[in-house]
Amino acid sequence: MTEISSLTNPGVKYVRRLQAERRFRERERAFVVEGTRWLAEVVRLALPPGRVYYTATWAARPEQAALLAQLPEPAQPVSDAVMAAMSDTQSPAGVLAVLPMPVHTRPEKVDFLLILDEIRIPGNLGTMLRTAAAAGVDAVLLSPGCVDAYNPKVVRGGMGAHLRLPVVAASWPEIRQWVAGLHVWLAAAGGATAYTAVAWAEPSALIIGSEAVGAGSEAQALAPGRVAIPMHAATESLNAAVAAGILLFEAVRQRAQRPAP
Amino acid sequence: MTEISSLTNPGVKYVRRLQAERRFRERERAFVVEGTRWLAEVVRLALPPGRVYYTATWAARPEQAALLAQLPEPAQPVSDAVMAAMSDTQSPAGVLAVLPMPVHTRPEKVDFLLILDEIRIPGNLGTMLRTAAAAGVDAVLLSPGCVDAYNPKVVRGGMGAHLRLPVVAASWPEIRQWVAGLHVWLAAAGGATAYTAVAWAEPSALIIGSEAVGAGSEAQALAPGRVAIPMHAATESLNAAVAAGILLFEAVRQRAQRPAP
Repeated sequence: MTEISSLTNPGVKYVRRLQAERRFRERERAFVVEGTRWLAEVVRLALPPGRVYYTATWAARPEQAALLAQLPEPAQPVSDAVMAAMSDTQSPAGVLAVLPMPVHTRPEKVDFLLILDEIRIPGNLGTMLRTAAAAGVDAVLLSPGCVDAYNPKVVRGGMGAHLRLPVVAASWPEIRQWVAGLHVWLAAAGGATAYTAVAWAEPSALIIGSEAVGAGSEAQALAPGRVAIPMHAATESLNAAVAAGILLFEAVRQRAQRPAP
Repeated sequence: MTEISSLTNPGVKYVRRLQAERRFRERERAFVVEGTRWLAEVVRLALPPGRVYYTATWAARPEQAALLAQLPEPAQPVSDAVMAAMSDTQSPAGVLAVLPMPVHTRPEKVDFLLILDEIRIPGNLGTMLRTAAAAGVDAVLLSPGCVDAYNPKVVRGGMGAHLRLPVVAASWPEIRQWVAGLHVWLAAAGGATAYTAVAWAEPSALIIGSEAVGAGSEAQALAPGRVAIPMHAATESLNAAVAAGILLFEAVRQRAQRPAP
């Protein structure tokens, strides 16, 4: 296939718009993933990507060229300058793909949910999605105040999480439907229950708010329980993504100990 | 005291150089902290700061002016433009202070250490220091490959940790002296021991390496044990600061359960 070297190529313009505009992503129901690790994930899951773009430099490595050979359709070579324009990063990896946004409905059995409220920093949201995938939650719900899950920085920080678990932007009425039958806990500094005293092996949902503004009134109304991480001395708080990791993996620890059903 | 409005003022130039140059910080044995929360910590600990600078806007809030009144020496008002030049942030809080670097020697009894190896991203290091303070470790040791603990971004991310626990840049021979008598564990993907199976209530040291390059050969030689966080499905890894939080707080959880000595 001929290398694209023009920034006015329609496919190039399409990718750039997906990277830049949330509304365009939502209209097209598509988003962009970058880097070798993401492409390996696309291949592993046998996903049909919209279009894969790569540079000659990137494909010069045999193990990377081998990934291209496993795609269902030929990938599109582009010049370094075009890749730089399409990439959201300062140092482009040299490969990117357009993917359809997955559509998720609530599974019948939901046992372990993470709900993120008002998380506005893309890097923080990406890290939390990555952590949630590692912890094996059934889904992550994002409240209306969160940054877009398909923002390029969130996708980058998620390190593949978007393909590994349902990430659902939901209204509060929808969130209330998802948590039916679950114990709902809100992480809160000064919460009455220590996180190690919660029975996480029960069907549970955990709500994490932002460091800056905390959880909103809808989140507070939804959660009967307030859970805290007891801290040493005068320390006031933890980074929200670190707190999410500590809470989720305490749940994982307790769940590993429960008897098989 | 007269407001400073000139960028050529020697005190202003001194602060700017402390912010910008690691070598100058080390020569002066001083660093800069910014923001109301940091100043409150300085007051709480009754530290003698080198000099405190503030803007009229910042001091217009009575509770913030009250902090100034508790300082042992009068603080120095500066114009907004001077504060913007002295600050490391895009949106200066309006107050900053020069502090002497604390000097730390190994206490006789060391029970719980965190050792960070080759952590080069300032925000990551700051978050890990904040987490370590919350977990109540005795000290954090930084290997020669780490970013400077007094880098302004590390200080900001530490949220007061630098005043709450010893943060020590150490050579490997010094680190070996610190860990005498401790069980040393290196966090490693694919490590043989699950982190929940480690007896953290024993005197312990935990080594965390960087995500990008992992722990170096010195760290590997120091730690007989490799500890891993088991993860769900195909997830490969966690953010290093999140992993540090999960490991440190599992140690805190186990230590809370041990009988009083």
